[in-house]
Amino acid sequence: METWDAIRARRNVRSYTPEPVPDADLTRIAEAGWRAPSAGNRQHWDFIIVTDRDQLAGLSTVWRGAGHIAGAAAAFAVVVPQYDDDRARLIGYYDLGQATYAIMVAAADLGVGTGHSSVGDQEKAREILGVPADHDVAFLIGLGYPADRPLRPQVKPNRRPFDEVVRRGHW
Amino acid sequence: METWDAIRARRNVRSYTPEPVPDADLTRIAEAGWRAPSAGNRQHWDFIIVTDRDQLAGLSTVWRGAGHIAGAAAAFAVVVPQYDDDRARLIGYYDLGQATYAIMVAAADLGVGTGHSSVGDQEKAREILGVPADHDVAFLIGLGYPADRPLRPQVKPNRRPFDEVVRRGHW
Repeated sequence: METWDAIRARRNVRSYTPEPVPDADLTRIAEAGWRAPSAGNRQHWDFIIVTDRDQLAGLSTVWRGAGHIAGAAAAFAVVVPQYDDDRARLIGYYDLGQATYAIMVAAADLGVGTGHSSVGDQEKAREILGVPADHDVAFLIGLGYPADRPLRPQVKPNRRPFDEVVRRGHW
Repeated sequence: METWDAIRARRNVRSYTPEPVPDADLTRIAEAGWRAPSAGNRQHWDFIIVTDRDQLAGLSTVWRGAGHIAGAAAAFAVVVPQYDDDRARLIGYYDLGQATYAIMVAAADLGVGTGHSSVGDQEKAREILGVPADHDVAFLIGLGYPADRPLRPQVKPNRRPFDEVVRRGHW
C-alpha cells in the first residue's frame, strides 16, 4: 500500500475476525518497531509476539481496557526497563510511542488492524510472558483483521480541527 | 512510495540541502501527526511549522543537540501541555512519540529527511514561537532534503540484534 494510504487507513481496531495473521507478516510488523528511532539509539524496548490463545486470554485481564486482546489474532507486548530517573522514563515512553506507531502503520499496510491497551496488573502480565521483575510490560497492542470493515483511508478522522492543531510560525 | 519502503528509508537526517520543502508537503507531513492515535483520543499536542530562517537559527540554540535546526528547510515544534500528574505526563509523551513517528514516516515518503532534538531552554523556545507559559516545547523535528544521499531503504540499520529484541510467546 502507498504510505499515505496506510497512514490514513490506520485506525484503532478492537474487534477482529478469527483469521490468523501470517507469521511472516507478524515478523515484518515487528521489524518496523525494531527499526524505529530512539534517543541516542538506545532502543530501550523488547517486543514479545503472542499468538497462544491462553496467553491472549490471560493478557486480556491485566487492564480494564485490554478486553480486545482475548479476541485478537495476536498481541505484541511492549516491554521497557524500569527507570530510576524521571526524565529518562519520559524519553523512554516517547520512544515506545515511536515504535508503537511504526508497528501500527506497518500493520495497516498489510490490512491488519491494531488497538492499544495499557497494563495495570504488572505482576500478572510479567508472569504470563516470563518478563523479569526489573522490566515493565508498558503496553499491549492487539492485532488482527477488522471484524467490521477493511482498513481504508479515512476522510474525516475524529480529531481536533486541523487549523487549531497545526500552526504556522507562531502559536 | 510503498509503506514498507518508507519505513525502511526513514533515518535520522541532520544535514540538509538548501532546497525548501513545498508547503503542500509540509502540510501533508503535519496531517500525519494530526491523524496519529492518542490515549482516549486526547490529542495533547500542537505542531508549529517553522520555515523562517531567523526563527530556525534561534531554535538551533535551545539545546546542545539542536544545531541541525539552523540548516533545516523547516522545523516542526511539538508542543505539549504541562501536566500535574506523572502518569498523565508519561502517557502524553508516549503519544507525542506516536505523532513524531507519523510525521517522520510521512516525510520519508516524500523524500524528506527528519532529525529530532530535545529542548533545554524552554523560556527561549516559548519566546521564539509565542508558546504560552503553561505549555512546553517538548521536541523539535528538523526537516529537509538530505545533504549526503537520498532516502533509500536501509538493509542493515544500526540496531540491537533482531532476535534479541523480538521474542516469541515468552521473554
